[in-house]
Amino acid sequence: MTRTGRHGRDTRGDILEAARSSFADRGYDRTTIRSVAAQADVDPALVMHYFGSKKALFTEAMELPFDPGVALREVLHPLDSTAGERLVRFFLENIEVGDRSTVALVRSGLGSDEGIPLLRSFVETEIVETIAGLIRGRDRRLRASLIATHLIGTSIGRYLVRIDPLATVDEEALVRAISPAIQNYLLP
Amino acid sequence: MTRTGRHGRDTRGDILEAARSSFADRGYDRTTIRSVAAQADVDPALVMHYFGSKKALFTEAMELPFDPGVALREVLHPLDSTAGERLVRFFLENIEVGDRSTVALVRSGLGSDEGIPLLRSFVETEIVETIAGLIRGRDRRLRASLIATHLIGTSIGRYLVRIDPLATVDEEALVRAISPAIQNYLLP
Repeated sequence: MTRTGRHGRDTRGDILEAARSSFADRGYDRTTIRSVAAQADVDPALVMHYFGSKKALFTEAMELPFDPGVALREVLHPLDSTAGERLVRFFLENIEVGDRSTVALVRSGLGSDEGIPLLRSFVETEIVETIAGLIRGRDRRLRASLIATHLIGTSIGRYLVRIDPLATVDEEALVRAISPAIQNYLLP
Repeated sequence: MTRTGRHGRDTRGDILEAARSSFADRGYDRTTIRSVAAQADVDPALVMHYFGSKKALFTEAMELPFDPGVALREVLHPLDSTAGERLVRFFLENIEVGDRSTVALVRSGLGSDEGIPLLRSFVETEIVETIAGLIRGRDRRLRASLIATHLIGTSIGRYLVRIDPLATVDEEALVRAISPAIQNYLLP
């Protein structure tokens, strides 16, 4: 699949950017192939050509700006007493990147009965599986899920719901406060 | 304010039940005073009489079926090495009570720009303030917020997104896995 169309325009990238923006602003249910196409200034058939369905478009929009398998493997190596702190810092620094954050897309998915399974698949595949594959001992997948829910729950509390003092505390203080819990899930 | 109307019917309770159901099923934005009134079979003016506004109705609907201040004070006393485990067990046993769960209402609030501040106020007032008032040491409010986001995030992962294996693990295994983190926020 080519990513750049005529005149070197990155049509696929433009569609994805429009989709991210629409899912984040209007929610999953109110985003349509047609509205994304209009926003990206392309024909709806082209959106279908590149992505195939709204579900697939959302899944691609949720994709992090890096390969989580590669990134988490790097961040968690070596799996020592500072791994938890490195993971928390990495997560906080990458969750709010770009115009339309992962938090906004998670919110969009949570609000839709069709979005929930896509969100589940995203968290299971991109985060839980990867972390579970890198740690040892019993209940690895459960511990990996708790890392995911703690970090995602805290991001929603900090960036979306803006719970005081979570929303206002500086990043280093938050890293210090949350790292022991994450470390204990990594190396109980 | 009287809670039972003519013929001993609990009109206020009926309205609240209809509101909970509607917020949970249709979301915050699509729930109206008029639709709640229709579902409870009362005049919209009566909904306004009892609750005053949709925001106030949502806030009342979010109310837990017990006074969190009283309940948390009991659960966390004494604040010893088993307090974290008691708090996790209490939370898991009470978050999914009734037909329309707190998780469904949290989801409803998250999906609406008007619901977010109500959700923030709920979490800050009912959970963070209460827990922060019962623990000691530095960063008490931050630690209390992290308890809230960890427990709420995990409940959303377990009951709504249904992340594997969080959704399927038995409650005791989950209590064992998550309690050390909560304990460490209570008594670092």
